[in-house]
Formats: sequence, structure tokens, C-alpha cells
Amino acid sequence: MDSSWDDLTLAFSHTSMFPFFDIAHYLVSVMAMKHQPGAAAVARKNPVSSWFTAMLHCFGGGILSCVLLAEPPLKFLTNHTNVLLASSIWYIIFFCPCDLVSQAYSFLPVQFLAAGMKEVTRTWKIVGGVTHANSYYKNGWIIMIAIGWARGAGGAIVTKFEQLVKGDWKPGGDEWLKMSYPSKLTLLGSVIFTFQHTKHLAISKHNLMFFYTAFLVTTKITMMTTETSVTLAPLEDTLSRMLFGWQKQFSWCEKKSETKPSSNGTGSSASKPIADASENVKKKHNKKTE
Amino acid sequence: MDSSWDDLTLAFSHTSMFPFFDIAHYLVSVMAMKHQPGAAAVARKNPVSSWFTAMLHCFGGGILSCVLLAEPPLKFLTNHTNVLLASSIWYIIFFCPCDLVSQAYSFLPVQFLAAGMKEVTRTWKIVGGVTHANSYYKNGWIIMIAIGWARGAGGAIVTKFEQLVKGDWKPGGDEWLKMSYPSKLTLLGSVIFTFQHTKHLAISKHNLMFFYTAFLVTTKITMMTTETSVTLAPLEDTLSRMLFGWQKQFSWCEKKSETKPSSNGTGSSASKPIADASENVKKKHNKKTE
Amino acid sequence: MDSSWDDLTLAFSHTSMFPFFDIAHYLVSVMAMKHQPGAAAVARKNPVSSWFTAMLHCFGGGILSCVLLAEPPLKFLTNHTNVLLASSIWYIIFFCPCDLVSQAYSFLPVQFLAAGMKEVTRTWKIVGGVTHANSYYKNGWIIMIAIGWARGAGGAIVTKFEQLVKGDWKPGGDEWLKMSYPSKLTLLGSVIFTFQHTKHLAISKHNLMFFYTAFLVTTKITMMTTETSVTLAPLEDTLSRMLFGWQKQFSWCEKKSETKPSSNGTGSSASKPIADASENVKKKHNKKTE
Repeated sequence: MDSSWDDLTLAFSHTSMFPFFDIAHYLVSVMAMKHQPGAAAVARKNPVSSWFTAMLHCFGGGILSCVLLAEPPLKFLTNHTNVLLASSIWYIIFFCPCDLVSQAYSFLPVQFLAAGMKEVTRTWKIVGGVTHANSYYKNGWIIMIAIGWARGAGGAIVTKFEQLVKGDWKPGGDEWLKMSYPSKLTLLGSVIFTFQHTKHLAISKHNLMFFYTAFLVTTKITMMTTETSVTLAPLEDTLSRMLFGWQKQFSWCEKKSETKPSSNGTGSSASKPIADASENVKKKHNKKTE
Repeated sequence: MDSSWDDLTLAFSHTSMFPFFDIAHYLVSVMAMKHQPGAAAVARKNPVSSWFTAMLHCFGGGILSCVLLAEPPLKFLTNHTNVLLASSIWYIIFFCPCDLVSQAYSFLPVQFLAAGMKEVTRTWKIVGGVTHANSYYKNGWIIMIAIGWARGAGGAIVTKFEQLVKGDWKPGGDEWLKMSYPSKLTLLGSVIFTFQHTKHLAISKHNLMFFYTAFLVTTKITMMTTETSVTLAPLEDTLSRMLFGWQKQFSWCEKKSETKPSSNGTGSSASKPIADASENVKKKHNKKTE
Repeated sequence: MDSSWDDLTLAFSHTSMFPFFDIAHYLVSVMAMKHQPGAAAVARKNPVSSWFTAMLHCFGGGILSCVLLAEPPLKFLTNHTNVLLASSIWYIIFFCPCDLVSQAYSFLPVQFLAAGMKEVTRTWKIVGGVTHANSYYKNGWIIMIAIGWARGAGGAIVTKFEQLVKGDWKPGGDEWLKMSYPSKLTLLGSVIFTFQHTKHLAISKHNLMFFYTAFLVTTKITMMTTETSVTLAPLEDTLSRMLFGWQKQFSWCEKKSETKPSSNGTGSSASKPIADASENVKKKHNKKTE
């Protein structure tokens, strides 16, 4: 790569998130919160509670990573500027006369711009998390991945936990298990940046930040315009088949454990009855507990 | 103010909470716990669990403030004297022959004295929390307010969380949102003491402690004797109208968003339908989830 | 005691838990997790979530003790070897072709050996917890007991909390209250080792470790072979009568509080109506909340 390209990505990687990207992040987060049913009524009835929820939406990832590293969960409050910024955005979104902000936000290009800028902050958060975890635990690469992930995608977890405690949401057994698409992308990014940090990836950090951010923004905008969900299904399938699927070739022992020997010999179908059986067990168990 | 008055309030602010005020606090907390249905039966069936709940009632505020500052939540156990004192009070309240303590406590002047003394400890806790938070974060005034509040009124939150985890209590969506009256007063006190600490209030700390304590004790005793709840409604209304109500004068844009233009032009009534609408949305949502 | 006995117990107390005893602990923990209904299906559908649950089962006690001491809950991830060991065991248990490991584990002597070795790790954890807590709080014996207990038996609590958050389990009011038998034994062990550490028990640590481990393993194997539960009932009864039962001799005041004076004068039966009454109160309360 030539020097001018390097200069460009280096300059990009030094972009300050404050104030514009942070504003976009707070805007998207608080608008997501406002679109939950009842949020506007709560804001009028009990502004303190609404403000508290808004702060959890804006700073959730940081709070989770603080909890996981045993730092004060209130640490984000020391950054007065950002708290006041987020509070102002919460205030104008919920209490602006004529709901001007919501109306401006319903204009599609604004949404695209805000969503794109929010994705940029995600890269910065992952890198920040990985670096921060590394300052605690030299070469603790599992922790680096975990903290990068928590900071990048932990807001969703904190918000869900808040709803659970409030009784607004009941988990359906496997709700927590299903990772959302941004959460998976963040995990992927966290793994990549950790490997870059531990020198296992021969790419400079600023180039990686540029490419990862470009990837995040592109997929986000694509998903918003086409309203389809770009999935990581091929990658996941390959990984899952490599790690958890190779046992299927041992089809002879699957057959043994069945009462009726199934005639189809392919591995993929032979493993099905077992999954069915365990799901039956689950159903029975659910019936019992009901 | 003359010197003798200053001496009086200074002496008051140096009063040690140990042992008498602490005893009053533990007494009121454990009696409140005993009056919960089933508490006496649990104490006989499983003393360890009952003791644990009693400790949460007595030291809840301290535990919450420790969690928020990433200090060990078990820190209160290092103060052996206070733990043993609280344990003794739990023991004599639940296991005293003939239920003597409960009978003595049902005598009204004793209740008044204990409740008044408990309110005194609240001031000390708020001041302690604000000072402690300041030792971590110089000028972190949001954290100082939060920790002062958590230490003064956090026991209720910790206790509710314990009941939630035990399944004794189901939150009804906005149960957490409604702050109790003591909780509001504690927040007010926490704000005042923080401003005093950051030199934004030109009053000496010992005078402020005296006046705030006098206010707390007076309102508490008044509420207990008249069995009415003194509310902060006027103050809240004023604040809420200043902060969140000024948009109502823009009544022309409220009208636009309605299907039927309402004839009444006053701001306060024009904003009603919107609140109604959002409550309808909430109801519909609840119906769906049921 | 002669020197050769001392040498034996000293050598025993210096046994390293890594790799064999740790393997047994992970094996028993993950097999217990696999026997929960639906666990196998979850592992195929969402390996990340299943792995996470397995880690909570394997390292739960350490995580709880970290939370209670305000250390990073992710600290266990720094021990890469043990994490990889536990992950491998999770992997071969859930994804081994032909379910070989489960079939080998269903062979009874293997279960006995693994369960016995797991109990040995419990002693090591209690001693580690007590020593670790002592390094923070000199002579904080209540904390030493609590941390020893948390590390030895905290896995069950962490696992239950995980199930609660997932919605797989609803607490029935007094589920948390009932301590399991291993949990009680761990509490007993934690108290004994704390007293040994503070020099209140005149026995050397290595001898105590040997006797306590022998006791743990013997009771565990006995319970598994006879399928009865050895209870601490006599000890508990004695303690409970000493601490909470002496009030029963004051039967004259129990009588006063009854509407119908009961004719039987023995203490144990006189106290019954009160317990009944408080249970009635509880039932009424439950009816109300239904």
C-alpha cells in the first residue's frame, strides 16, 4: 500500500468520536428507546426513570464492561460532557415542542446518516475495549475478546436486563441465546482486533479499523435499504460443520441408539432424530412444569 | 449566626451514630421486615435465610453504594460490632420469649422515637456517601449525588431486588419508577449536600446537617401522627412544569396531530389526548403480551 | 501423631488439583448440565450459549467469590489452561461421536471416582477462599467464612441465577432458602477452616484438610451407593434448639396470646399454634396476591 492510502486510514483512525459520532449514537439509541411502547407516557409521568433508562441505552456497553472488569459501573458519570450531551438529546427527543426531532428523524437520509455514524462508534468501542482489557491482563486474549464484545454490543444485554427486572419482558428460554446480527458482527470484530493486538494478524490497526468500519457501515445501510437481513449464515454453517458436524459421519452409532433403524444413510439426516428426541424431552419437561 | 448556635450545630454534627442511632435504625428495619407476611415463619424454618434478609434490610444502602463504586459488597461484614449489633436485634425481635420486643415496639412513643432516630442516621449516610464518592472522583458531582442517594435510600432497592429474585414480588411495569417519599427526600438531600460540598451553597455543613435532619424528623413524625403523606407535589409540579411543561404553549402543533381538532385552547388540556394515546398504545401492547 | 502420618497428610495437602482433579470437577459439572432437559438441543442450536453455561457450571464458585470481593468476574478467563481444559471437556461431552463419553460416564465406578475427586477440589476451594479473603481483610472472619462458602458452593447459586434470568426456572418463594446438603457441608467446612486459620482450632491445616476431605468423600460415596441422603439433621436440631428453642419453656406467654387456652403444657407443642398462625397469615397473603 502506498503512503497516501496509509495517511488516509491513519487520519481516519484518529478521528475523534466526540461530538458528532457520539451525538449520532445517542440519537439512534434514544430513538430506539422512544419507539418502545409506553416510553413517551413514562417520560411524562416519571422523567427521572425515563432519563435513567435513556442513560442505560446510551452507555450500556461501557457499564457492562465496567462490571466485568470490576470497575465502578457509575464511571461513565464522570464524563460530564457526554452525560450532559446524552441528557440533552434525551430531553429534546422526548420534550421538543411539536415532536420536531422525531419528525426530522423519520426523514430517511437522516436515519441512514445516524445509523452509519453509530456503526463507526462501534469500531472505536471495540478497539477501546480490547486495548483497555489488555492494559489489565497482558495476553489475556479471551478477556480481550469478551471486553471488546461487551463494550461494542453490551448495551442490548444491559437494556434487556433492565426490562427483565422491570417486568416488561419475560424471557422465553432461548431469547438470550439468539445473538442478534450486530452482536455477531461485534464478536467477529472483537476477535479480529484481539488477534491484531496480539500480533497474530499482519495488518496495521488503522487499516483494520478502516476496513472493519467500512464493512459495518455497508452492511448496516444495505440492511436498512433492502429491509432484508444480511446473515452470517454461510460462515456460521461452515464453522459449525467444521466444529460440531464432523461426528455425523459416524452414522453407524446413531443407528444403534434408535429403536427403528432408519434406512437413509446420509449423515445429516441420521443426526436429526436425536435432536428431535431431545426436543421431545424438552417439551415433556415444559408440560411438567406448567 | 452567633457562636453558641454554631457550637450547638457543630456538636450535633459530631454526634456518633454508634450505638444508639444505629440500634434505632436496625430496630425499625428489622421490625419492617417482620411485618412482611410469612417472615416469622421463615425465621423459625430457616434462620440463616432470615438473618441474611435482615442484614440486607439493615445494610442495604451500604451494599448498593459499594456495588456502584466497585467496592466489595461484603465490606459491611468487616465492621464486626455493627454486624453483631444488627444480628442481636434480629435475634431478640424474632426469638424473644413472649414476643416482648414487638409488644414494646407497638407502644407508639417508642415507634416515634425509633423512627425519628432512624431519620437522623439517613442524614449521616447521605453525607458519608457524598464525601466518600468525592474521595474517588474529585468534582464528580453526578456520582456524588448518586452515591449519597444510594447510601441513604438504597436499602429499599436492594430489598426489592431480593424479593424479586425470591419470586415474592412481581414488578408491575412501573413499580420501580415510582419513587417513595423518603426516596425523593433523600435525593433532594443528596443534591443539597453535594452542592454544599462543591461550595455552591454558602452554608456550613454542620448547619445544613442540622436543618436537613430537623426537616426529615419533623416530616416523618408529622406523617406518622396524622397518617397523611406530606408530599413534595408542589415542588415537583413546579419543576416539572418548568422543565417539561413549557412545550404545551405550542398548542397549534398538538392540534395538527389530532384527527378531531379539539375546541379547548388551553395548553394543559391540549396535551392530554397525546398522553392518552400513548397509554392506549401501552394497553394494546400489554394485551398482546398477555 | 507420629511423623510419618504428618508427612502423609502434608504431602496430601500439597497435591496439585491441576490436571486430574480439575478434569473430574469439570466432567461432573458438565455432565450435570447435560442431564438438564434440552441441554443437548441447545448445544447443537447455539454452541456459544451452551459453552457459556458450561463455563458458569465449571467456574461458578470462583465467579461468585470474585463478585463478592469486587474482583473482575472474568478473572477466571486469565487462566487459559483451565478454560481450555473445561472447554475441551464440554466439547467432547456434547459433540463426541456416538456419545462415547456419556456412555463411559454411565459406568458406575467412573461416576464414583469422578464424584469423589470433585469433592477433593471442594476442600481446596474452601481453603483457597478463606486464605484469599484473609489477604484482603485481616481477621475479617465473617468475610472469610462467606468467601470460603461462596467458592466452595457458589456454583449452584450462579447456575440458578442464570436459569432464573433465562426464564427456565421460577423460584417458589422458599427455593433459595433451602440449602442443599453439599452447601451445608461447605458452610460447615468454611467455618472450621476459618477457625483453624484464626488459630481458634488447635489442629494443623494439613491434618484438617485430610480429615475434612475424607469426610466429604465418604459421605458423597455413601450417598451415591445407598441413594439415601445423609442429613445433618441431628446437628441442626441441636443447634436450632439451643439457639431458637429455649423460648419454648416460657409457655405461659404463648397461652396468653391464644384465644382458646390449650391444655397441653409441654413447650414443643405449645409453640406450634404460633407457627400455624403465621403460616395462615402467609396463606392469606398468597390468596390476596393471586
